[in-house]
Amino acid sequence: MAGFSSGGRTCYTGAVAKLYFRYGTMDSAKTLNLLAVAHNYRKQGKRCALMKPRLDVRFGEAAIRSRWGLEAEADFLVGPEDDLPMEELSKLDCVLVDEAQFLSEKNIESLRELTIVHGVPVICYGLRTDFQARLFVGSKRLLELADAIEEVKVTCYFCGKKAIFNLRMVDGHGVFEGPQVVLGADEKYVPVCAAHYREQVLAAR
Amino acid sequence: MAGFSSGGRTCYTGAVAKLYFRYGTMDSAKTLNLLAVAHNYRKQGKRCALMKPRLDVRFGEAAIRSRWGLEAEADFLVGPEDDLPMEELSKLDCVLVDEAQFLSEKNIESLRELTIVHGVPVICYGLRTDFQARLFVGSKRLLELADAIEEVKVTCYFCGKKAIFNLRMVDGHGVFEGPQVVLGADEKYVPVCAAHYREQVLAAR
Amino acid sequence: MAGFSSGGRTCYTGAVAKLYFRYGTMDSAKTLNLLAVAHNYRKQGKRCALMKPRLDVRFGEAAIRSRWGLEAEADFLVGPEDDLPMEELSKLDCVLVDEAQFLSEKNIESLRELTIVHGVPVICYGLRTDFQARLFVGSKRLLELADAIEEVKVTCYFCGKKAIFNLRMVDGHGVFEGPQVVLGADEKYVPVCAAHYREQVLAAR
Amino acid sequence: MAGFSSGGRTCYTGAVAKLYFRYGTMDSAKTLNLLAVAHNYRKQGKRCALMKPRLDVRFGEAAIRSRWGLEAEADFLVGPEDDLPMEELSKLDCVLVDEAQFLSEKNIESLRELTIVHGVPVICYGLRTDFQARLFVGSKRLLELADAIEEVKVTCYFCGKKAIFNLRMVDGHGVFEGPQVVLGADEKYVPVCAAHYREQVLAAR
Repeated sequence: MAGFSSGGRTCYTGAVAKLYFRYGTMDSAKTLNLLAVAHNYRKQGKRCALMKPRLDVRFGEAAIRSRWGLEAEADFLVGPEDDLPMEELSKLDCVLVDEAQFLSEKNIESLRELTIVHGVPVICYGLRTDFQARLFVGSKRLLELADAIEEVKVTCYFCGKKAIFNLRMVDGHGVFEGPQVVLGADEKYVPVCAAHYREQVLAAR
Repeated sequence: MAGFSSGGRTCYTGAVAKLYFRYGTMDSAKTLNLLAVAHNYRKQGKRCALMKPRLDVRFGEAAIRSRWGLEAEADFLVGPEDDLPMEELSKLDCVLVDEAQFLSEKNIESLRELTIVHGVPVICYGLRTDFQARLFVGSKRLLELADAIEEVKVTCYFCGKKAIFNLRMVDGHGVFEGPQVVLGADEKYVPVCAAHYREQVLAAR
Repeated sequence: MAGFSSGGRTCYTGAVAKLYFRYGTMDSAKTLNLLAVAHNYRKQGKRCALMKPRLDVRFGEAAIRSRWGLEAEADFLVGPEDDLPMEELSKLDCVLVDEAQFLSEKNIESLRELTIVHGVPVICYGLRTDFQARLFVGSKRLLELADAIEEVKVTCYFCGKKAIFNLRMVDGHGVFEGPQVVLGADEKYVPVCAAHYREQVLAAR
Repeated sequence: MAGFSSGGRTCYTGAVAKLYFRYGTMDSAKTLNLLAVAHNYRKQGKRCALMKPRLDVRFGEAAIRSRWGLEAEADFLVGPEDDLPMEELSKLDCVLVDEAQFLSEKNIESLRELTIVHGVPVICYGLRTDFQARLFVGSKRLLELADAIEEVKVTCYFCGKKAIFNLRMVDGHGVFEGPQVVLGADEKYVPVCAAHYREQVLAAR
């Protein structure tokens, strides 16, 4: 079936809500922004759920932690093939998703349905591209289906320009080969502008 | 070689310019916007070139025509495997690209180089997704590499909400199967919001 | 009475619409954008009206003319003390306002009411500031009351940066004294960036 | 002297930086955003200063506190007639201003100079309008002089729409008369959308 709608023939009533994709590089304070939005909803007495992709079986994976020490527990951990609990989600005022680049196409299509059929706004925070400047699966589907594409900004690690890429560094040098996600301890990621990313690409040859 | 840089080891000097992707649905006046920007550059005595993907051998394919009657001739028609004339482009104040969704990855990587190495800003106008709500090749690479992602808006054909999808219609009904690009005379495209796109998807089952 | 609402106790029903302020400098193609939006509404069979402040009694003042030759007739010319024809406006799908910087506070408060009470979206195009970098009366009220503040961009007359100010020029030099609006034939306006505006201010001392 | 430049004839060299105004209602997490930006600059080894208007002589006025518990000390407290320490500020990578709506015109003109003459970016966070939907002195000058006008969003206290006004409440009711700034303990402020602001205005009559 073409098109994003994989649901039944349910008719929607009431207001249609928006699907947001707020993208940014590493260290752009996406999670802090998410927690601030969650705090604002709850302060106003509104029901707001936090969602995260289930990636592995590491301890404490339900934690949504910003690098500033603020943190919260994810209300929903979703695997790529999971059916979302639409009944439960439909009662909310907002769904906030962290690390949305790791969601599956199926996950995102369900969230899109949630906004249309149940009128619940969904705000997804995530990386735009990986260390090779390629879209993640989740980012790609969000860029296809979102009503609003908004940027969370941070400056380049090397200069004052806006960063748009994520540089994987090992021993102080940019690395451009390897798997999309690594769980090692040797690499770190820094946000860089296009010119400094290119500089590192050339240096790595 | 991973990363977007496929060029030589040329060092850039001077200011780095930005790569823009201004996306919008069918009928969102993207081409009119492009022509207005071109007009503004030229009025100020600046050198600005118009570029278009070379798609086929139809008569008059170099024309850049907005639906309002304004038009201009493309200065550069580029095929997917073409090397861009970087020397020539490097002397410009701006490059404007129409129908950028049909550019190849190679084309876009060259334009990205142009902004970094030669400091020439490049503004690409194009569709975000096709009639199946999937990114075009060119849109995908632009969403990966652009410094600025900006929307050109239009309302839904069926209601007053913002359109985000392109609906292919044949005989008044949405169609969701078939090749990405058709050159027939039977179909037309209308901009639609997420809810009305979904409605048409369900009706087509 | 404080607050922007000067209307009666009419209750609103149905959807509330948005008030937009799309600001830009001289020559940023604001009017062309407005005409494109009008064209899009009408092409979709929607009812859309063009509005303009009534400034003086010059011949042909109802014309809305872009510098690209496109033009249209204003459906409504409003004076600063006029009551807007709310009944008539309430039946529309959209109101588009040209030269909105010259509207009065009263005009803008009525348009704000129109969006809330009757659910008609209003899109105002206008200058942000005058040649002395001061808000116009209409721009000020729009910046106070608009739901969305969006920029229509153009480059600086002297360089490639974005223009944000309007420079009044006489005999090739910036002029910074005089009335806000002049109807003479000796001056022209060019869009300039902050640095070039400052340069002209210093040169004029 | 007209125009915003009140400085000497100093020539600028090097890159011109931008003046940003990031506006939002009460409770839109402006200060949290500011602290996140500061953290990001410092994490990258860049020099970043926090500035605040000097309002009164309350204890601890140099503290910049977000409602999430994060806080920092302001590096500069400026009074409306103060000359900014341009020499000192010119060595920074960024200046971040909290509660910018309370800056004076003179303050903002100096910050504008800093961006042009010394190439230091300045990011101002503040309210757009007061409880009567009128610009503050600082907001007005920023809206006149800023290169970028960006919104920090929060939902309406009463519904799910975006808030654009600040409602002053006493005993659960909107209040629309009184001084712009009060230091009493009886009132609180909530962010509201245009429709709910209007509803409160009508109820207060």
